[in-house]
Amino acid sequence: MEPKSLIIALFLLSLFFGSLSATPTRKIKARNPCKRLVFYFHDIIYNGKNSNNATSAMVGAPAWANTTIMAGQNHFGDLIVFDDPITLDNNLHSTPVGRAQGFYVYDKKDIFTAWMGFSFVFNSTQHKGSINFAGADPIMNKTRDISVVGGTGDFFMARGIATLMTDAFEGEVYFRLRVDIKLYECW
Amino acid sequence: MEPKSLIIALFLLSLFFGSLSATPTRKIKARNPCKRLVFYFHDIIYNGKNSNNATSAMVGAPAWANTTIMAGQNHFGDLIVFDDPITLDNNLHSTPVGRAQGFYVYDKKDIFTAWMGFSFVFNSTQHKGSINFAGADPIMNKTRDISVVGGTGDFFMARGIATLMTDAFEGEVYFRLRVDIKLYECW
Amino acid sequence: MEPKSLIIALFLLSLFFGSLSATPTRKIKARNPCKRLVFYFHDIIYNGKNSNNATSAMVGAPAWANTTIMAGQNHFGDLIVFDDPITLDNNLHSTPVGRAQGFYVYDKKDIFTAWMGFSFVFNSTQHKGSINFAGADPIMNKTRDISVVGGTGDFFMARGIATLMTDAFEGEVYFRLRVDIKLYECW
Repeated sequence: MEPKSLIIALFLLSLFFGSLSATPTRKIKARNPCKRLVFYFHDIIYNGKNSNNATSAMVGAPAWANTTIMAGQNHFGDLIVFDDPITLDNNLHSTPVGRAQGFYVYDKKDIFTAWMGFSFVFNSTQHKGSINFAGADPIMNKTRDISVVGGTGDFFMARGIATLMTDAFEGEVYFRLRVDIKLYECW
Repeated sequence: MEPKSLIIALFLLSLFFGSLSATPTRKIKARNPCKRLVFYFHDIIYNGKNSNNATSAMVGAPAWANTTIMAGQNHFGDLIVFDDPITLDNNLHSTPVGRAQGFYVYDKKDIFTAWMGFSFVFNSTQHKGSINFAGADPIMNKTRDISVVGGTGDFFMARGIATLMTDAFEGEVYFRLRVDIKLYECW
Repeated sequence: MEPKSLIIALFLLSLFFGSLSATPTRKIKARNPCKRLVFYFHDIIYNGKNSNNATSAMVGAPAWANTTIMAGQNHFGDLIVFDDPITLDNNLHSTPVGRAQGFYVYDKKDIFTAWMGFSFVFNSTQHKGSINFAGADPIMNKTRDISVVGGTGDFFMARGIATLMTDAFEGEVYFRLRVDIKLYECW
């Protein structure tokens, strides 16, 4: 082999080994989302009369309140468990593509804010698996970010940010959240 | 130095620098688990009579139920706090190697499903530290995956998947979960 | 170009491409924290008389207790929701730099331990965004580690460890936690 060919061969080899050690897995990390998904979910809170179509229920309340009527002081202390339909558009009656399941708790006396732990659970032709969320939800902000802390199935090991937006609400019984999921770690 | 030696020296140098920049930490990421652990944990729910050996208690319930008797409609709304022994085999009476501590909440009216947030807490010769879990648990599925969202001590910064399996249950008082922990991020 | 210049050019090129493939993002991972922050937060539990300055409230309790008085057996089963001021020093009356919002639940009968899910929420000139925490808190240990499972804004995609220390407590009404946040994944 001539010197020049040898150099080129070595150069290519070094690139090959360099890229090998640089990419130990198929994990992708990026400042731009490696996956982006938008969903809506619909929460109908039990108010003592709507047991047929309610999708959530109060299961904890502070000493000065009860689990039937939302507490005063911006619902501070009310803990709600939910199993809400997820839809692709903002129509409650669209065919659900999954369920949003978990809890939120109102955690401030002065204004509406909540802390949420929940999952999106999918078992359709489009998506199988789950996305797990946790974080503070300062409800009165137009948009607010929570964390995607993990995922399973199609969303194996995912991490990212979910931007929540209250898309609609009707008194204390119904609200609809738009969830813009941006994954920055995809496997 | 002869040209050839120079080339080889440069080549080795480039490999060295390439691998340096490629491995900024000792973190390992892999499609195959970098660590795998199997445990069992045992939940004995307080039912009003078993306060001596109960390991968990209902602390939240919906308006139509109470915290002594599990609610109808697949326990929808019942919130349970637990401190359960972890064992290496499926025997409740084996020496515990740690404690499973946290909560789960039944979140669906139609079938048994729950949302869980909990930790495995170890302080033995085998393991020190904790593993933190979060996710949806569709109980009626034979196996279901939740997320390992973090860890401390021996499990510093761990991430992964835990596959849950109901290994046994006795009515509404006892159940045993098999937890197959697969870590894909190890530091 | 002379052979020697060619070699050096190729060598530099290989370094360039090697480092390119080695650093697909600006994410930094390290055994030493890439960011470290120390805060204090102050929890004043509602006891039936202090509604003006209470920052937290019991919203769940086991069957043998209620949501006004902390339960016996090391408060096992008590679920507390909080919105606590965060300060830079250990003085409750210092200007808050953010709010600690979320919940904790006492999960053991024999000793004081809790499981926590909460966020630090910042909206000041110093910090904007949130840090999300989850993990077991074996309160009687001098220090204990929980997980930073995610972050938003200034703490975009953060992961790490938070070391908690009970800095002060007064009976069952007030406690102050020192939180030493060590982030090992910074974007």
